[in-house]
Amino acid sequence: MTAAAFAPAHITGFFAINLDPDPLKAGSTGCGFCLMKGVTARNRTNLSINRSIIRLNGKQIDLPTLEYMIEYLLGPEHPSLNIDLTGDVPLGYGFGMSGASVLASALVVNNMFNLNMTVDQVASAAHVAEVVNRTGMGDVAGQCAGGVVIRTEPGTSGIGKIDRISVEPLEVSWVCLGEISTASVLNDLIAIEKINKIGKRVLKALLKRPTLNDFMDLSREFAIDTGLISSRALDAVEAVEAHGGKASMAMLGDTVFAIGRCGALEEFGPVGISRIGISGAHYL
Amino acid sequence: MTAAAFAPAHITGFFAINLDPDPLKAGSTGCGFCLMKGVTARNRTNLSINRSIIRLNGKQIDLPTLEYMIEYLLGPEHPSLNIDLTGDVPLGYGFGMSGASVLASALVVNNMFNLNMTVDQVASAAHVAEVVNRTGMGDVAGQCAGGVVIRTEPGTSGIGKIDRISVEPLEVSWVCLGEISTASVLNDLIAIEKINKIGKRVLKALLKRPTLNDFMDLSREFAIDTGLISSRALDAVEAVEAHGGKASMAMLGDTVFAIGRCGALEEFGPVGISRIGISGAHYL
Repeated sequence: MTAAAFAPAHITGFFAINLDPDPLKAGSTGCGFCLMKGVTARNRTNLSINRSIIRLNGKQIDLPTLEYMIEYLLGPEHPSLNIDLTGDVPLGYGFGMSGASVLASALVVNNMFNLNMTVDQVASAAHVAEVVNRTGMGDVAGQCAGGVVIRTEPGTSGIGKIDRISVEPLEVSWVCLGEISTASVLNDLIAIEKINKIGKRVLKALLKRPTLNDFMDLSREFAIDTGLISSRALDAVEAVEAHGGKASMAMLGDTVFAIGRCGALEEFGPVGISRIGISGAHYL
Repeated sequence: MTAAAFAPAHITGFFAINLDPDPLKAGSTGCGFCLMKGVTARNRTNLSINRSIIRLNGKQIDLPTLEYMIEYLLGPEHPSLNIDLTGDVPLGYGFGMSGASVLASALVVNNMFNLNMTVDQVASAAHVAEVVNRTGMGDVAGQCAGGVVIRTEPGTSGIGKIDRISVEPLEVSWVCLGEISTASVLNDLIAIEKINKIGKRVLKALLKRPTLNDFMDLSREFAIDTGLISSRALDAVEAVEAHGGKASMAMLGDTVFAIGRCGALEEFGPVGISRIGISGAHYL
């Protein structure tokens, strides 16, 4: 068996969190977009080891969210797995790479063990693992659908609700300034109250004019009004705007993204580029 | 403006119809899959004519469903449009090409007139046009999502519910034996009663084991039990099975489709081939 699956990276522009005690109903509303770049997961054939091993770009790592998903699907007595992840963008910088890793791996596990789950069932395992481990609240729902996804009601695919902004093919660029721990923000209940108030306000505004330009403007407003944006990230956003572009901060990472190939970002670090990805997670 | 959009062809294996008086809630449950092949719609720049002109593969045609969608979106006093459709598979043979034509054109209209509609809103215009004109009841919902789509609740995208069978990349092949008018079947209420009873039964069975193999077996059962399959189509299905393959009839067209490249179909006519398409309708 050599199952391989891909899940796109996902940049969230703004969000509001729902901490429902049922992890299938918990999640977030908001808006973000998938990239053509993301994570490819493969199972390695050697199952003779006595514990699961996860590698990202060849290096062994601990991903408790991924281990949780495996146990969720296969039970506590599950066989050891060897999962190789290839990531096109870094983990921890607001690309939803935790969600992409778990979602692509869940597709692989579904295939390896003939679990015969639908896409929504596979996504639910990834979503629950993310929510319980506080590594993400809505990336998986976006990554399951593909495109520029508006999450209008929180929860896993099939329980929450989504719609999509219809966009022509285009590139986005970004610069990574630093890491942010999603869990550190999600565990700050006072911060969440403020975030949710602003997140709900900008979502309501987006639904009145669901265009990419409005998404960018409202993401910027969200990043600044919540205080989540760092001063260096704000500098980068303003540098893009000085060149007539639109930019904001990837939630949650100290990463600034912009529409199009944006040279103004270069003074802040190496610039990444990807087209927006219209396909959701899938087998390769 | 040179907006261009693509919508995939969609082959339905089985269905049950809901004739709700509200066309947004009307539609069908069932299961089918999208192809990489489909329809590309482009607007032509010459708007100096005094009525809309629709061309399919260069030849002017009447598509009342498409004209209905234009009026639905732009009102009765809308400017004349020139829409060029390029179809990869024929219209009238069970590929959901009516739905694909209307959905791709609706994306183009959304772009041309800056209607700022979400994907679900665009799809709803196409779905309503299909339902009112009885040219299709569920193709658009599948074509909006992409992949192998189970329609678990009827209605347009965002009102109905879908899930997807997770499949590895694969090819399907088909042979077209003759045309069937979707409206002629949808207007036969006695036939619909029988179709719905069988369609609901096989959907229930599919949801217990949502795999591609089960989809094929249940589609065959549906085609035979409803009596919708022609004797020549049944011959083609049996020829595929005699070679160890799986096949059924595209709903609604006198077309037999099979999983994989299927040489056994060749004795029945020219064989078409496409990969299953995982992307829903999108701009080009």
